[in-house]
Amino acid sequence: MEKNTNNIEAALYLFPVPLSDGATDNVLPNVNIEIIRRVKHFIVENLRSARRFLKLCDRSIDINSLTFVELNRHTRSEEIPSMLDPLTQGEAIGVISEAGCPAIADPGADVVAIAQRRGFKVIPLVGPSSILLSIMASGFNGQSFAFNGYLPIDKEARTKKLKIMQQRISQERQTQIFIETPYRNNKLIAELASTLPGNMLLCVASDITGEQQSIITRSCSDWKKAKYNYDKIPAIFLLFS
Amino acid sequence: MEKNTNNIEAALYLFPVPLSDGATDNVLPNVNIEIIRRVKHFIVENLRSARRFLKLCDRSIDINSLTFVELNRHTRSEEIPSMLDPLTQGEAIGVISEAGCPAIADPGADVVAIAQRRGFKVIPLVGPSSILLSIMASGFNGQSFAFNGYLPIDKEARTKKLKIMQQRISQERQTQIFIETPYRNNKLIAELASTLPGNMLLCVASDITGEQQSIITRSCSDWKKAKYNYDKIPAIFLLFS
Repeated sequence: MEKNTNNIEAALYLFPVPLSDGATDNVLPNVNIEIIRRVKHFIVENLRSARRFLKLCDRSIDINSLTFVELNRHTRSEEIPSMLDPLTQGEAIGVISEAGCPAIADPGADVVAIAQRRGFKVIPLVGPSSILLSIMASGFNGQSFAFNGYLPIDKEARTKKLKIMQQRISQERQTQIFIETPYRNNKLIAELASTLPGNMLLCVASDITGEQQSIITRSCSDWKKAKYNYDKIPAIFLLFS
Repeated sequence: MEKNTNNIEAALYLFPVPLSDGATDNVLPNVNIEIIRRVKHFIVENLRSARRFLKLCDRSIDINSLTFVELNRHTRSEEIPSMLDPLTQGEAIGVISEAGCPAIADPGADVVAIAQRRGFKVIPLVGPSSILLSIMASGFNGQSFAFNGYLPIDKEARTKKLKIMQQRISQERQTQIFIETPYRNNKLIAELASTLPGNMLLCVASDITGEQQSIITRSCSDWKKAKYNYDKIPAIFLLFS
């Protein structure tokens, strides 16, 4: 193991970030904090939120002694390889997303792919994932599942996507998971409840790990009758039957 | 919130368990330990390993004051509903798997489904998942992925399954994830390396969160030339291109 002066192995560490406000204690193992204290170079989705996260981990971290580069949808792909330069000098690098796990529904995957190609060690750390937590609590099949990201907005493509998901539920018993922009949550639930078969099960998991966490599985016909308001609350959706 | 004498909300708590030996600190948030101390009723995959896990969480837990029921492949489905009886009396229940996250590639999903149907609160806790950690570190698409469980053993069904996975990689850019019985790992890698296109990427993630953790992405043609030995080491496999 190559160790630098900070006594940490030169590797690309992937640090999950809490999904909601509150203590890191509730969602991150202690070892994450111990490791993050020793990392001096960071690739971050958003500079401000990454600094805030570091202060939340340990108020005594000296932010000014650290280096940061941003990696998000504005980054040009040719800028990415040099982000790994500290590794070639035996220094550890940390990857920090805005919320949740780096490289899951998030641009971090590009830099991890390059690190893998160049033979650098990649170390993922444990943390909250709305995808995983919602599958656990949905009661749906956890032996076969697919995360589909956002549903298409275009009506025809969206109908087609929903049809394919229904097929995979019935033919493969594969749980289908997807997300939506939070201000469209109520509209999406109404749409699913009225277009899918009444006995199809829909799980809506909202504010995961937060104060108002709610994970509710109901049939589409029950959702049609139910009162709910998920407006602007981060949520994830799962289908099964 | 309904609270019982142990000052904990009556809910079905899903407790992840470490994937490998070592301190719970490395893979579980502190809050999991705080909650587990207050739960008196457990649904467990294996009695012995659940007791060992509880002692690992807190040596002072009085195991004899707790109730346990086993839920695994030997359980008849008609036995499951009554496992939730403590909830009807306002008592919390914990679900503990052998390793990893309850209800993910694990029988816990059945009891969660019943809890959801009966309107009980289900609270999943953060912990290690080889599926999620391996996607993060693979460098593969984390915006669309499918977990397929075990590959079929029957040759024809297996070839067909691998073909469908290849299609979903090329047509949908969907990362494909699957597992294998550990003593067959080397055979599986050799099979994939020789039957899949040479430029297909295979990530082998082994002993995740353990001392010998290794997460390596290579093209199938590179795996064909590589030296490796994953015999009897728990591993998970991912394909992408």
